[in-house]
Amino acid sequence: MKAAERFRARGTQKIRDKDASDAPLATGDKERDERQVMELAKKIGEYQDIFYAEHRRKILIVLQGMDTSGKDGTIRKVFGELDPLGVRCVSFKVPTTVEREHDFLWRIHKEVPGQGEMAIFNRSHYEDVLVPAVHGLIGDKERKRRYAQIRDFEHMLAENGTVLLKFFLHISKAEQKKRLEARLANPDKHWKVDPNDLAERQYWNDYQQMYDKAIHETDADHAPWYVIPADSKDHRNLAIGSIVVETMKEMKLAYPPPNEAYFKVKVPD
Amino acid sequence: MKAAERFRARGTQKIRDKDASDAPLATGDKERDERQVMELAKKIGEYQDIFYAEHRRKILIVLQGMDTSGKDGTIRKVFGELDPLGVRCVSFKVPTTVEREHDFLWRIHKEVPGQGEMAIFNRSHYEDVLVPAVHGLIGDKERKRRYAQIRDFEHMLAENGTVLLKFFLHISKAEQKKRLEARLANPDKHWKVDPNDLAERQYWNDYQQMYDKAIHETDADHAPWYVIPADSKDHRNLAIGSIVVETMKEMKLAYPPPNEAYFKVKVPD
Repeated sequence: MKAAERFRARGTQKIRDKDASDAPLATGDKERDERQVMELAKKIGEYQDIFYAEHRRKILIVLQGMDTSGKDGTIRKVFGELDPLGVRCVSFKVPTTVEREHDFLWRIHKEVPGQGEMAIFNRSHYEDVLVPAVHGLIGDKERKRRYAQIRDFEHMLAENGTVLLKFFLHISKAEQKKRLEARLANPDKHWKVDPNDLAERQYWNDYQQMYDKAIHETDADHAPWYVIPADSKDHRNLAIGSIVVETMKEMKLAYPPPNEAYFKVKVPD
Repeated sequence: MKAAERFRARGTQKIRDKDASDAPLATGDKERDERQVMELAKKIGEYQDIFYAEHRRKILIVLQGMDTSGKDGTIRKVFGELDPLGVRCVSFKVPTTVEREHDFLWRIHKEVPGQGEMAIFNRSHYEDVLVPAVHGLIGDKERKRRYAQIRDFEHMLAENGTVLLKFFLHISKAEQKKRLEARLANPDKHWKVDPNDLAERQYWNDYQQMYDKAIHETDADHAPWYVIPADSKDHRNLAIGSIVVETMKEMKLAYPPPNEAYFKVKVPD
């Protein structure tokens, strides 16, 4: 079975019913799994070379997940073999004053990929619904309105040649605790600690439920959501890497046709 | 001698007096040179990890050179081991209508790196002086005015924590001919051919002279120019990689100090 089928979000299935420690793609042999991730990463790099030359379609990858779910690690491991010329990472933080003075898609639209470009969103427009919804700053009606706007927005992107892939990195609350504790214990990782991350744990279940709604309301064949069991980092990388490779393969990428006239051109001295 | 000393632009020395086929850093053993480039690239990746964590200073790398001088190849080989999260490549093309309606630094300023970020400019604000100067669209007075504006702009960037490195990839006219011919002969590279590149060869000497002026007028210790003999790709990569590694070493990068309080924090269940 293709990874894209296996991890595709399905109907109203709840995140809490999915085991975050599931690791069907991992062999348990860490070295072997890491080698396999490296091969997937290199394959993505090869496809990207053609994708860049083709200069026609766009690829947008959205990474979402709770703190410590491994968004940064995914970028490093799965997308680390790409030519820096053709990939652009955008980390969306708490909106600035100016950003808040616009609709929530304003800052997102500015960063979508152009032809031949792959953009990776490290958090995204989904944060601007999830966070205010969890904290009661917007109600059901506004939340639904925003998801309808997201559906229209992503539909427009797809119609204009963007291949969208949306990943929810699913970790358990216990795994997050372990990862936060590891950060607190390592002085070189203190810069990554945000005391707010600890406080947000109390909203864990609310976030999970809001993610269910986000995924349910915005999953579409042209903008699919994948729920990736991510307690195992190797499995997370294998699953995401496989889905990206499958998707790029299906894009039937090809170098633009040669220009016959060029074969006869003489370069002047 | 440090590579940064060896290749630093000096006073009024002319590009045409420098041998583009010079390759003092290459050993002639291609495999060994490529391994060395890979090690430099990995070292840049290691430094970048700390630079990103430090989240204080900025790095701006400017790549300039004639067509086929190897700007794309440099990005792939020298900066290919960076975490995509911390590097951003910007290719400046022919200015758009809207860009031309602003001063020439407007589109540049929008793309300068933020704290902890490394930006690589594939062509840059220098194009907006070189090209119009070579084609007689601006005269000496306007050219000098723009270089004064660039000096002020780069000085401001440096004062605000930006480490600038500017590389001129120096190839010979004969080497360009070889590279253009190779592109024309390879159907998978036809997408890279711009017939205009061939026509521009007639202005070769004018470009070299204009580069002399650009370098002479804007070289500064806070924004140094390096003239890299680039007929040999391995040498080009070795020289640029070495200068970047030397520069990052001198930045005395360090992880932010640990927060002692964090060692006592308990993560809530």
